[in-house]
Amino acid sequence: MCFLSGDEAAEFIGHGAKIGMSGFTGAAYPKEMPTAIAERAKEAHARGDEFAIDLYTGASTAPDCDGVLAEADALRFRMPYQSDPIMRKKINAGEMKYADMHLSHSAQQVSEGFFGKLDFAIVEAARITEEGHIVPSSGVGNNVEYLDAADKIIIEVNSWQSVDLEGMADVYRVQSRPNRTAIPIKNPGDRVGTTYIDIDTDKVVAVIETDSPDRNSPFKPIDDVSQRIAGNFLDFLEGEVAGGRLAYDGYVMQSGVGNVPNAVMAGLLDSKFENIQAYTEVIQDGMVDLIDAGKMTVASATSFSLSPEYAERMNKEAARYRESIITRPLQVSNHPEVIRRVGLIATNGMIEADIYGNVNSTNVSGSRIMNGIGGSGDFTRNGFISSFITPSLAKDGAISAIVPFASHIDHTEHDVMVVISEYGYADLRGLAPRDRAKKMIAIAHPDYRPLLEEYVERATSQGRPMHTPHDLATAFSFHQNLAEHGTMKGK
Amino acid sequence: MCFLSGDEAAEFIGHGAKIGMSGFTGAAYPKEMPTAIAERAKEAHARGDEFAIDLYTGASTAPDCDGVLAEADALRFRMPYQSDPIMRKKINAGEMKYADMHLSHSAQQVSEGFFGKLDFAIVEAARITEEGHIVPSSGVGNNVEYLDAADKIIIEVNSWQSVDLEGMADVYRVQSRPNRTAIPIKNPGDRVGTTYIDIDTDKVVAVIETDSPDRNSPFKPIDDVSQRIAGNFLDFLEGEVAGGRLAYDGYVMQSGVGNVPNAVMAGLLDSKFENIQAYTEVIQDGMVDLIDAGKMTVASATSFSLSPEYAERMNKEAARYRESIITRPLQVSNHPEVIRRVGLIATNGMIEADIYGNVNSTNVSGSRIMNGIGGSGDFTRNGFISSFITPSLAKDGAISAIVPFASHIDHTEHDVMVVISEYGYADLRGLAPRDRAKKMIAIAHPDYRPLLEEYVERATSQGRPMHTPHDLATAFSFHQNLAEHGTMKGK
Repeated sequence: MCFLSGDEAAEFIGHGAKIGMSGFTGAAYPKEMPTAIAERAKEAHARGDEFAIDLYTGASTAPDCDGVLAEADALRFRMPYQSDPIMRKKINAGEMKYADMHLSHSAQQVSEGFFGKLDFAIVEAARITEEGHIVPSSGVGNNVEYLDAADKIIIEVNSWQSVDLEGMADVYRVQSRPNRTAIPIKNPGDRVGTTYIDIDTDKVVAVIETDSPDRNSPFKPIDDVSQRIAGNFLDFLEGEVAGGRLAYDGYVMQSGVGNVPNAVMAGLLDSKFENIQAYTEVIQDGMVDLIDAGKMTVASATSFSLSPEYAERMNKEAARYRESIITRPLQVSNHPEVIRRVGLIATNGMIEADIYGNVNSTNVSGSRIMNGIGGSGDFTRNGFISSFITPSLAKDGAISAIVPFASHIDHTEHDVMVVISEYGYADLRGLAPRDRAKKMIAIAHPDYRPLLEEYVERATSQGRPMHTPHDLATAFSFHQNLAEHGTMKGK
Repeated sequence: MCFLSGDEAAEFIGHGAKIGMSGFTGAAYPKEMPTAIAERAKEAHARGDEFAIDLYTGASTAPDCDGVLAEADALRFRMPYQSDPIMRKKINAGEMKYADMHLSHSAQQVSEGFFGKLDFAIVEAARITEEGHIVPSSGVGNNVEYLDAADKIIIEVNSWQSVDLEGMADVYRVQSRPNRTAIPIKNPGDRVGTTYIDIDTDKVVAVIETDSPDRNSPFKPIDDVSQRIAGNFLDFLEGEVAGGRLAYDGYVMQSGVGNVPNAVMAGLLDSKFENIQAYTEVIQDGMVDLIDAGKMTVASATSFSLSPEYAERMNKEAARYRESIITRPLQVSNHPEVIRRVGLIATNGMIEADIYGNVNSTNVSGSRIMNGIGGSGDFTRNGFISSFITPSLAKDGAISAIVPFASHIDHTEHDVMVVISEYGYADLRGLAPRDRAKKMIAIAHPDYRPLLEEYVERATSQGRPMHTPHDLATAFSFHQNLAEHGTMKGK
């Protein structure tokens, strides 16, 4: 083991290096190397030298990772997901490149050589075992595949992370093709791998000792709109139970991150649903509450996304929580095979949806990247039922979540089954487009319903009902109004 | 067994009946019942009575199935795929409803109750076994799930179909959730089920004896443009071999239906690729040629889609072909789990793609349904590499296959890896949107490249490079030009 400081280890990194890092929604990212690399970039730039790396992670990281690197112009390319305000600005200014990918595709495409040779894997650990293997900290993400693919490995051992996290991770390697066998997970709680990541220890060039917290953002208190959305979501679930398509016992959930999803989980706490299981991407406060209340038996994910208060509790009580929480490689947590097998109900947020149920999760007004698709596509396409939850309005009513034509499409009409706002739920299953439009307009904010109805009238006028009626001349009128008049309503 | 004529059996069918039928790309559909139901509808309409059914199939059928039913206004609702000219007209005229679904979702959603109770399954058989089980004819499609879900069963035994087809089908039931286990297929050639569909014989209300050919459309001779596209596809494959991402031995293919895919298969015949396997939706002439030439070891699909000449050969030599051809339930042939496991290269046609690689497979100018998404989404999302092949022009140059903004999106930028025209291939893997646009414009027809470049300039002007540059005011200008001036080029 070669113990180095972050600054010393950063000396290994050259311009153009391709680096796979740990890190997923603010958890388990390396705490020293990003800043050290950013400093190295700044020094190089001050000398007039080029210095920028290609950075691959699990998902978003934190201001002291994505933030410092973007600010230092130390990134040439980034994939598969980010949510950093500085990075977002750089991407939209055309100053760095970003490939917004399905998370379940990311490690696979690195392993299969679509991104060329990976130079470094920089991975946080809770500890290193006697054999030199890595015990994951607060998330697994793409670590396994990046450690396998990289020429050199740098490990950050973070003493802030509880050593009791050992035993929470279930490290299963998805086999390489064409000799792949089935992933042997049948239920969300199945453990099929090891508690550590075995690595080629000869590739380790540095071990860095750190003691820094994950970035954990507090959730806002649940507001009235979120509560109404959660209520409508539960109404939908009750309808499924009444229709014989769902049982109160053993509901399998997936949930996107945010305040509305947290309100949904708070709603489940007081519901008739019991023995809930999560097969999802990240462990959130609401799931911890469900576990503590005895409503959730197991939560499987790839990482944590907790508030500071809950992260502290997790660190203190990891030995207890590891009985009911499993962290898996992202390629397993988000794998179509397992998602479809366990029959989960997917619930994700969105930017906007159109009247036919096509969903935009990524680009505001078609052009400006917000964060990325993340795992929403993995879960939406393969879920038993796939839902999106959204307030009907944004920006004090200037923006409608329901528009005539989504300005970017990440989830198509073929994938989106239910859309839920504070005005109800649009159950689109088995409907032809014209019937979908009626349901979608009914959950739009009342201020926007007449404008959406006028669009449908225009689209179907002049003897052209068509299968999916559109009036292409005014399909983006809401977005053009927003750009020109500051509101989708127009002048 | 209650042997009846089609007309007699049609007496069972009432207005509003929900019917699951066999039939997939013109193969294995019932030959008598559709016409008998259409006649019954016409008689009812003549009396002034309502009569229309909801029809679920595997995919498209034939003029004497979808065609006669649509013409008689005997359909209220149709899913999951169609390609019939009369039906298309009725859908676009708003006279019947159509839900265009991922084929892999269709039977599952029926089984899980999203469409309510199924009244009838009407299924063609090559023969009925002594135990009363069904030996599939030229395809399996959604038969298993429809037979399981329906209250009543009507079987058409078609003596035109070779009895030697027995042994070709591999009937595996995807288990119901939440107790589903892995589908035990590792390689395209694995057989994991029975050669017949076991049914509840008490549900059989009629057996009809028929002797009618499948609808088999001849393929056009390979034209120059198709040949150039096939050449570019093979160049792409050669590049993958050179890059160490693909081997000449054991390439697993999926192929959409049509003349360009057939040109690709003809190209493979003369290539260095050996021991090719197909894990695909339909068996086409090109695969039969590859098998006969010893280049393809096994082809797994759900159905045939052969020319009349090849269908005749298949019927004559079914005993030989069943050694290397497997027909599976659609839910297995198109299952994300197996598709992703076998690591296939997906190749499908399209209507148009935009400069960022979003693909429209279904709606012309955003509104007018052509056929449907079929299995293209199942394979594209889960393939090892996912490609689309297209001539750069349609309608004598009035239509460009590459447009600024796809007028309907079925496959998003996150799924589409390679687009191939007669002008080359656009390898979009790992690229940020602005770089994708350059590659896409390079494979557009030279007449349209300047117009596409002008669009990108407009979209990036006024200090707004953005992540995915769009100028929403002119995003559909190509389509508006087509509507107003008869050509996407404008006046």
